[in-house]
Amino acid sequence: MAFRFHKMHGLGNDFVVIDAREGAVEMSNARARAIADRRTGIGCDQLIIVEPSEVADARMRIFNADGGEVEACGNASRCVALLLGDRSTIETLGGTIRGEAGQGGATVDMGHPRFDWDAIPLAYPMDTRAMPVAWEELESPAAVNVGNPHVIFFVPDTDAVDLERLGPIIETDPLFPERINVNVATIVSRDRLRLRVWERGVGLTRACGTGACATAVAAIRAGHVEGPVTVELPGGPLVIDWRAGEAIRMTGPATHVFTAEADMDAFG
Amino acid sequence: MAFRFHKMHGLGNDFVVIDAREGAVEMSNARARAIADRRTGIGCDQLIIVEPSEVADARMRIFNADGGEVEACGNASRCVALLLGDRSTIETLGGTIRGEAGQGGATVDMGHPRFDWDAIPLAYPMDTRAMPVAWEELESPAAVNVGNPHVIFFVPDTDAVDLERLGPIIETDPLFPERINVNVATIVSRDRLRLRVWERGVGLTRACGTGACATAVAAIRAGHVEGPVTVELPGGPLVIDWRAGEAIRMTGPATHVFTAEADMDAFG
Repeated sequence: MAFRFHKMHGLGNDFVVIDAREGAVEMSNARARAIADRRTGIGCDQLIIVEPSEVADARMRIFNADGGEVEACGNASRCVALLLGDRSTIETLGGTIRGEAGQGGATVDMGHPRFDWDAIPLAYPMDTRAMPVAWEELESPAAVNVGNPHVIFFVPDTDAVDLERLGPIIETDPLFPERINVNVATIVSRDRLRLRVWERGVGLTRACGTGACATAVAAIRAGHVEGPVTVELPGGPLVIDWRAGEAIRMTGPATHVFTAEADMDAFG
Repeated sequence: MAFRFHKMHGLGNDFVVIDAREGAVEMSNARARAIADRRTGIGCDQLIIVEPSEVADARMRIFNADGGEVEACGNASRCVALLLGDRSTIETLGGTIRGEAGQGGATVDMGHPRFDWDAIPLAYPMDTRAMPVAWEELESPAAVNVGNPHVIFFVPDTDAVDLERLGPIIETDPLFPERINVNVATIVSRDRLRLRVWERGVGLTRACGTGACATAVAAIRAGHVEGPVTVELPGGPLVIDWRAGEAIRMTGPATHVFTAEADMDAFG
């Protein structure tokens, strides 16, 4: 069976997006893995299926390159919002989000941040605005859960931090029972942050959307900046906006590289 | 400018093949690099341009993922032969080769092997049928140049050799002034070999076409086997045939994954 797909990326996080609104596609974990294979398949970080939805304009399913289905991916949401065009609603396993296509990118919801110590989660109660802990020169971090757990250290110069050495130490500290993403940020101005992220289970990455969200929220909550905040990541900038009680909104690039047809039988 | 391309692979060595026989494409090293990028481009090991030729059915140009143009690639030749269909002639920087499309694959010329010690090259004169040298249990290798230099050790069990440790030691031995590809092969029967290759500058690979050629030629030359010989590589089998004074012929899989259009302006 022939199917049509789009190759897209957001800050270098790349996707095969199958538009299955017109005709259903049968997806299995093995098939997703075969499509994601960069040498013998089409190649991507995540496979996205856009399907009809009864509660939104479309439903988005996300498969990692290992074949497993996951709840959410900010970079993928922007690509799907760009495809749907204008204003749209997108049903995901993590809830329905709003999308808005823009010039070369899109704005999407990233859910509500949580600040309670047991929602991060931490191993014991602590003020998550400024935690009384330190790892060498990194001290008094904030903590935010934006679907996944983050600690955020505000430092004078992100490049001066040896994140490759300290990241894994902090990630696996017993204070964080589900481990933690480690953000090191510098406040550039009232509406601009610079950020480097050690991603839980991954390492240093060029663009972590949830890290940008968690860091901007922590900086807004502490009064360091006012939204919307431009967060400069090594892979490029994201603009994050948030007000207490509302969902985080993330704006950033989404790039369409090409559209093609392939035969599903080629992928098992 | 829009251009049409095919995504193909041979034993997992993958290519973006642009058919420029109808309309020329302007290629630069930077543009080739942008197209080969697996996240922000189309993604491939090598970019292949098929152009009109004055001396053959088509001309094939090969760009590595780093943007540099190279002479030859056996896996790419099979893919181009499959695209051209039936019997074809293909002009390359390394000379004109014959191609023949088959079921799910193709047969292509791999040039004439060279056996002279200074054509390998070796640092000093030596019989390349069985060189009086040894690295631990690996001894008396043959040497063949098939466009690049190879040593071949025939052993009872390829899997019992610690090629990851011995490969780099042999590759950089002063006996080989241009370094060397290291082949470890087992003779399974009169028409079948099993092969593992340590590729010069690369390491252990799943399918080295020139290694399969060099090893089959060395085994035919020594009388261990008769052509055509099936060479089982970790990535799959290749069939190699050779007679003294003739070009090596390689038969193996070539897979078409999908065809698409993209805009050249997206790649700089």
